[in-house]
Amino acid sequence: MERRITPRQEDYSRWYLDVIREADLAENAPVRGCMVIKPYGYRIWEGVRDGLDRRFRETGHQNAYFPLFIPMSFLQKEAEHVEGFAPELAVVTIGGGKELEEPLVVRPTSETIIGYMYSKWIQSYRDLPVLINQWANVVRWELRTRPFLRTMEFLWQEGHTAHATAEEAMEETLRMLDVYADFAIRDAAIPVIKGRKSDREKFAGAVASYTIEAMMGNGWALQAGTSHYLGDNFARAFDIKYLAPDNEVKYCHTTSWGMSTRMVGAIIMTHGDDQGLRLPPVLAPIQVVIVPIWRQEQERAAVLGLADQVRQMLADGGVRVHLDAREDQTPGFKFNDWEMRGVPVRIEIGPRDVQNNAIVLARRDRPGREGKIFGVPVPSALERVRELLAEVQQGLLEQATAFREANTHTVTDYETFKEVIEEAGGFIRAYWAGTSEDEARIQEETKATLRCFPLDQPEEEGRCFLTGAKTRQIAIFARAY
Amino acid sequence: MERRITPRQEDYSRWYLDVIREADLAENAPVRGCMVIKPYGYRIWEGVRDGLDRRFRETGHQNAYFPLFIPMSFLQKEAEHVEGFAPELAVVTIGGGKELEEPLVVRPTSETIIGYMYSKWIQSYRDLPVLINQWANVVRWELRTRPFLRTMEFLWQEGHTAHATAEEAMEETLRMLDVYADFAIRDAAIPVIKGRKSDREKFAGAVASYTIEAMMGNGWALQAGTSHYLGDNFARAFDIKYLAPDNEVKYCHTTSWGMSTRMVGAIIMTHGDDQGLRLPPVLAPIQVVIVPIWRQEQERAAVLGLADQVRQMLADGGVRVHLDAREDQTPGFKFNDWEMRGVPVRIEIGPRDVQNNAIVLARRDRPGREGKIFGVPVPSALERVRELLAEVQQGLLEQATAFREANTHTVTDYETFKEVIEEAGGFIRAYWAGTSEDEARIQEETKATLRCFPLDQPEEEGRCFLTGAKTRQIAIFARAY
Repeated sequence: MERRITPRQEDYSRWYLDVIREADLAENAPVRGCMVIKPYGYRIWEGVRDGLDRRFRETGHQNAYFPLFIPMSFLQKEAEHVEGFAPELAVVTIGGGKELEEPLVVRPTSETIIGYMYSKWIQSYRDLPVLINQWANVVRWELRTRPFLRTMEFLWQEGHTAHATAEEAMEETLRMLDVYADFAIRDAAIPVIKGRKSDREKFAGAVASYTIEAMMGNGWALQAGTSHYLGDNFARAFDIKYLAPDNEVKYCHTTSWGMSTRMVGAIIMTHGDDQGLRLPPVLAPIQVVIVPIWRQEQERAAVLGLADQVRQMLADGGVRVHLDAREDQTPGFKFNDWEMRGVPVRIEIGPRDVQNNAIVLARRDRPGREGKIFGVPVPSALERVRELLAEVQQGLLEQATAFREANTHTVTDYETFKEVIEEAGGFIRAYWAGTSEDEARIQEETKATLRCFPLDQPEEEGRCFLTGAKTRQIAIFARAY
Repeated sequence: MERRITPRQEDYSRWYLDVIREADLAENAPVRGCMVIKPYGYRIWEGVRDGLDRRFRETGHQNAYFPLFIPMSFLQKEAEHVEGFAPELAVVTIGGGKELEEPLVVRPTSETIIGYMYSKWIQSYRDLPVLINQWANVVRWELRTRPFLRTMEFLWQEGHTAHATAEEAMEETLRMLDVYADFAIRDAAIPVIKGRKSDREKFAGAVASYTIEAMMGNGWALQAGTSHYLGDNFARAFDIKYLAPDNEVKYCHTTSWGMSTRMVGAIIMTHGDDQGLRLPPVLAPIQVVIVPIWRQEQERAAVLGLADQVRQMLADGGVRVHLDAREDQTPGFKFNDWEMRGVPVRIEIGPRDVQNNAIVLARRDRPGREGKIFGVPVPSALERVRELLAEVQQGLLEQATAFREANTHTVTDYETFKEVIEEAGGFIRAYWAGTSEDEARIQEETKATLRCFPLDQPEEEGRCFLTGAKTRQIAIFARAY
């Protein structure tokens, strides 16, 4: 069989594109920077959506839908916001065959139009909090794109909430950061670091931006979700006010938070190996694939019979199972094919298994014979598969965590910083007391950026690796997507 | 209490807008012709989406996602298609601050870009059929808009399939028409007529368009879903070809089919009455509301205790139930409020009910005392509520069917046709052998259009009411949204 997936060591970017192509996740569209999300990739996204949506409901949020088009003048009401987004806008200037009087922006994010609506909906403290989420497509005119990670159009959810006080809004901001971290860790098996963005990296118009940062298989960082405390910036820009119990009219404090199809890229790059995808069972479109094995025609019916019996048993038990009964492919081809597609558990059933009324399980997260479990009795198959799916889920999280730990370095001076970034890669944890200008200089010299100030900060004081100033603040630096 | 909903007889259009406003379903957006779908309205749409999505999967379809933007040149490849959609396009001419070389159209529908992708994906008969659906927003520059019914941007699904033969594609077209009818009848309790569109009314680029037509509360027709057989029109325009088993290269036959947020408008106008919404239980965000009733403070705890016990019992049984424990509103206000929001079943619990360990049920589809069931023992509440929800679902369908039958007229000459349309309204069933020009004339003179040729056609011959020609073809005419 020809080598279709470039090894990660050889060329990580090519490996990523190979996996997306071979696992049939997505494809470039004929519009520059846009992608087509194919059915298998879209089902992973549906898993992300469902996992988040459930958590949003559990934390009291409701879904709604706001327009795709935003009047240009809306964006201009918040100065930092328009400055941040103006270079990335797609603009509709013609509608129904006529030049528009006011151009319409295709939403790059919806703080402005939602802020406008909130100013109409919110009158009194009784109307607060407003806790709304939207599932939508957004457009940002990106120059360098990469499927899932950075595309001109992408799918996401954006939560927008309004509160009476700064404290409540900040609580919400951090609550949703927790929701993202919980989803990433439990559902996507991606260990993430919760942290605050530096002023240089924060959202255009926010007072403070929070992030979950993940480490990809090449040691680079990926911002997998963000939650912003907007203070009263947008409330002032859009006049979102309420009458407080003390009869004073006050500005609301608002938040926004988003996670996007980028998460699918994070899953690919956190777990994938040289054989292809490795999907966490919680999100895998197919959790278990059954590959029947027979040589002689007289074995066929018995093997397929047992395979279908097991398939039915698992499906009835709520397992997403697929029986690969293709006649024109060998078992070996099928093994590789489903490994490449990242299916967490494979079941092999041959003539001897039929005799023993038993099956063989193989887990995707451990290669070769080490990952196989022989002679699982058919009556206990469902129970054993469920356990194994939980073990694979846990195994992927542990492997990713170990990888991150092994690739996180502490440095105390800039020379070492540069060496580590260049040679070892990965995350650098270091004391930091520099300015935005210092960050810019580091990025220029090393291509590394300040990813976040982890919420989990040390008690002890240290010295900034760049300026030597005393500080209690630890930052994480890395090259990033 | 002030009258907030205009009676239907007084002004049906105003009634519709009043219901949307008072039930908090949607609101006009600051962009002309666009709406904001508010949480309660969006949950109805989520019910529509889930009901359809399940049926699409059961019939073998997969979801995917294609880009929002389509190069202008793509639309021009199918002559009828571009002619139909050109006047309605929103066009992006500026991206990232620069004038684009080729303008991008915001998709009004995706046959063209999906056709382009299919031409790359389909090589052999083994690749067929391709059965894909997309959930997306689309934009059509409409001049006269109305929330849910006709908005510039709307949410929908669009299925796009490719097949080896005309027969298979036609089977798919009718299968999806059946899926839409099944959803409309069973989930939305809307009786619909399956039929074929006339050439004048068919989709731009289709060989044949099929529709489900529903009758709204004012007797007007509403096209609630369409399924198109596209022949090889788009296959030729986009070069969607396959190598057949006989080694010949052949064009595919394709279909497309869609249902949109318009369905929410159909639900409002099929079932609503002068008190407001009436939602079919299958799609109601809240199926049961519990209103506790007490006068004296010492009754409060006992009543709320039983109310919460019943709430928990119903929730555990999978019923979408809400306990309205607001302290600042009277039971009477709450009754009206939830009736207006269309909740199918109300439970009343007062001090005497606590004594008897029983509750009162009231169904939204039957007004006043006639719709009440007294003394339902608490232990059988779940079972009785489930039965009642099924009865309300059936009741709404029966009422709507009876209304449609009562407002469907048969005519044999054009004079009567004009009288009936002007005075009685509703549907006209009549023999029809006219041309597209005849249809245009009828529309001009009566504002009625040919809604469809019902699939269910009579055996007998008759005479066209306009031309007098003999024909076996029955058509339905009506004024329509």
